[in-house]
Amino acid sequence: MAVFHMGECIRKTKQQIPLTNEEIRQLVRGITAEPPIPDYQLAAWLMAACFSGLNDAETAALTMAMRDSGQVMHWDLDAPVADKHSTGGVGDKTTLILAPIVAACGVYMPKMSGRGLGHTGGTIDKLESIPGLSTALDPADFLALVKKAGFAVAMQTGNLAPADKKLYALRDVTETVDSIPLICASIMSKKLATGADHILLDVKVGSGAFMKNDDDAAELARRMLSAANADGRDCTAILTDMDRPLGMCIGNAIEVQEAIEVLAGDTESELGGFCIELAAEILHMAGRGTAEQCLAMAKDAVTSGRAMERLAVMIAGQGGDASVTEHPEKLALSACSRTLRAARGGWISAMHSEEIGRASVLLGAGRMTKADAIDSGAGIRLHCKNGDAVEQGGALLTMYAAKESQLDEAEAMLRQAVVLSDEKPEAVPLIHRVVRSDSSARN
Amino acid sequence: MAVFHMGECIRKTKQQIPLTNEEIRQLVRGITAEPPIPDYQLAAWLMAACFSGLNDAETAALTMAMRDSGQVMHWDLDAPVADKHSTGGVGDKTTLILAPIVAACGVYMPKMSGRGLGHTGGTIDKLESIPGLSTALDPADFLALVKKAGFAVAMQTGNLAPADKKLYALRDVTETVDSIPLICASIMSKKLATGADHILLDVKVGSGAFMKNDDDAAELARRMLSAANADGRDCTAILTDMDRPLGMCIGNAIEVQEAIEVLAGDTESELGGFCIELAAEILHMAGRGTAEQCLAMAKDAVTSGRAMERLAVMIAGQGGDASVTEHPEKLALSACSRTLRAARGGWISAMHSEEIGRASVLLGAGRMTKADAIDSGAGIRLHCKNGDAVEQGGALLTMYAAKESQLDEAEAMLRQAVVLSDEKPEAVPLIHRVVRSDSSARN
Repeated sequence: MAVFHMGECIRKTKQQIPLTNEEIRQLVRGITAEPPIPDYQLAAWLMAACFSGLNDAETAALTMAMRDSGQVMHWDLDAPVADKHSTGGVGDKTTLILAPIVAACGVYMPKMSGRGLGHTGGTIDKLESIPGLSTALDPADFLALVKKAGFAVAMQTGNLAPADKKLYALRDVTETVDSIPLICASIMSKKLATGADHILLDVKVGSGAFMKNDDDAAELARRMLSAANADGRDCTAILTDMDRPLGMCIGNAIEVQEAIEVLAGDTESELGGFCIELAAEILHMAGRGTAEQCLAMAKDAVTSGRAMERLAVMIAGQGGDASVTEHPEKLALSACSRTLRAARGGWISAMHSEEIGRASVLLGAGRMTKADAIDSGAGIRLHCKNGDAVEQGGALLTMYAAKESQLDEAEAMLRQAVVLSDEKPEAVPLIHRVVRSDSSARN
Repeated sequence: MAVFHMGECIRKTKQQIPLTNEEIRQLVRGITAEPPIPDYQLAAWLMAACFSGLNDAETAALTMAMRDSGQVMHWDLDAPVADKHSTGGVGDKTTLILAPIVAACGVYMPKMSGRGLGHTGGTIDKLESIPGLSTALDPADFLALVKKAGFAVAMQTGNLAPADKKLYALRDVTETVDSIPLICASIMSKKLATGADHILLDVKVGSGAFMKNDDDAAELARRMLSAANADGRDCTAILTDMDRPLGMCIGNAIEVQEAIEVLAGDTESELGGFCIELAAEILHMAGRGTAEQCLAMAKDAVTSGRAMERLAVMIAGQGGDASVTEHPEKLALSACSRTLRAARGGWISAMHSEEIGRASVLLGAGRMTKADAIDSGAGIRLHCKNGDAVEQGGALLTMYAAKESQLDEAEAMLRQAVVLSDEKPEAVPLIHRVVRSDSSARN
């Protein structure tokens, strides 16, 4: 093995000379080695990478090396294993709807998930609003539940891609978060470590998302597909509009309620239709039929109630009260509530998702630092969305929080977030684009 | 005072948004504060600065803030105070010749200098080859000697621009040395802290120098002049060829010998003429007369022996044996010597200064790490220079070292350094360009 010089790696990346696979593996090994590569050298390299970029081969090598820095999971199951990842949205309860549908159609979905931070929520926080439910599953229980329910959701452990964890913490304080190759490696190292054969990526685009425009989002999607393909995985990316929240609810208990509403048979709402499309995409990747067949299969899983049954099995399996699937009102909302009404009539031309996400944090539904506690009953229910007409005094949304003072703070922010116009705005589709692997790259 | 966010500074520099004067002052204050700004954030900022650059105002603000991080000297003398800085050359004994000339013409030159590192030598090492001479002078003795001899040379203390010292150490290990604004701030912070009114900068250009071409060297010169002018100092920069060593000797005792040879009356050699031109430039800056008058004055200081007298007073004042000025052979050279001869006849088309500098280190005349000891008697005397004709068997150079094995090692490198050709090469002037302040910027 050649002697490794971190200074040489920094110099090469600075001068846009590609690093070799071996150099990248040694660099990543050095992140968690004892003694580690000094943070100041990693920081200099990260900033050089932000300016110079990394090519596809370097990005794939970085992804693979970070994947291998910790536990790499393998599933020994009798049907395909799929996974889904969202780059972080406001009101994104897709996993809670999608996984039961996919499971009901014979594809396993063992999900490792994280908590929310900042203005976007996390699946773990949402699930923990169900009385009794735990996401701290030991590996054997997790596997048993996946076999039984078709899916399960466990808290992501620190042993999954630990090099990414350390590198991400450094990127966070050195303004080196916004590099597409680094974002790709961070996301995909963890996805590949969780061992799914088929991966669906939900790349959010818009003011409230990491990727502010379609071009950047498409480039991130292309990089992630390339890294997945380099590892022999099947991958599809969907670019989703994040200039508006996903669905009508933002919070924790309130989002579980909305997920249950969809699984109860709503295949026509924007959220219901979106989840069915995503599920069909996964089923198609997993070889369950043609695109049309998969769409019908996903729809049937909802209308037949089979997806809801899977959710109930999963909730019970993780120690939760499965009766919430029949009585979602058992998911208690916070005591104080207030409905915001339109000051004048018009059309809703914008519902800025970042501000709505921030308002939900002010209400108690999210956390700004990792140490903050959350109020699972806090949140927002929208009564209308972009493009809807409202009359003066018409209900725009209802807020829920523990204290009146929180409602006051959130109201000020939400007044800014909802924009009315005199003309009906042009409709923007929820799905901007679908980016698929070349079929030649498929397994 | 606004709250300081280092992350915000990194972000701005990354996006080429200029930092304010106040942000730069706080950043520099944070380098030596307790607790300091973390190295990883400084490293990320340094790399961003390498890519984005810093504008003239930022560069001047950085220079000034680093100057103010330690002691700032003020001279209360009855004549102008000048200083000279070289960006690091091979065989550069200019200070030893220039300072006595300038002093003999009524301009003070209190020099703070450093040791050599790598393939370029340092004035302190050269002076310490004089028996008894010390460069560790206390401030009162230093001032008294400057008043008496017109100049003195003291070891640069750690209290001069300590923020630069820390930042330079970080740049060295993060591949962020080669940024012109950062180089400018590093050099000029120390120069401005030493309090001279008139500053002459000798910017070396060529394969053996930091600046590889005239354009980069001219840009560095322009930046340094701009920073000096912003601080109300007068400054001139001379771009000097470093594709060949300066003068005929490389080492320590051997370079002092060469300096004494020049001061003994040699105004015609390339080195002698160069030092007189530099001295005249300083005298002109200091208002001692027209360019022509200053040139005549500098020449006269050498031919009259007055410059040599100043050198003797300075050597004695620093505890050294001043009789070396009359008997330079007292500066002992190392015991082993060997003369390299031309394998064939021709013209000398190249004498690569970097390799010659490295060979002098192998001989014992320099150090690769700060902890290495040096052999003051080791070195090289060239018998010919670029453009000279040599016959087969003609002497090219003579090496001096403590051990034969060192001669063997150096010989191998020197054989590569000296290139013979069949045709007479085109002559390259020693001085490439002179860059002067606008007269409007002068005091």
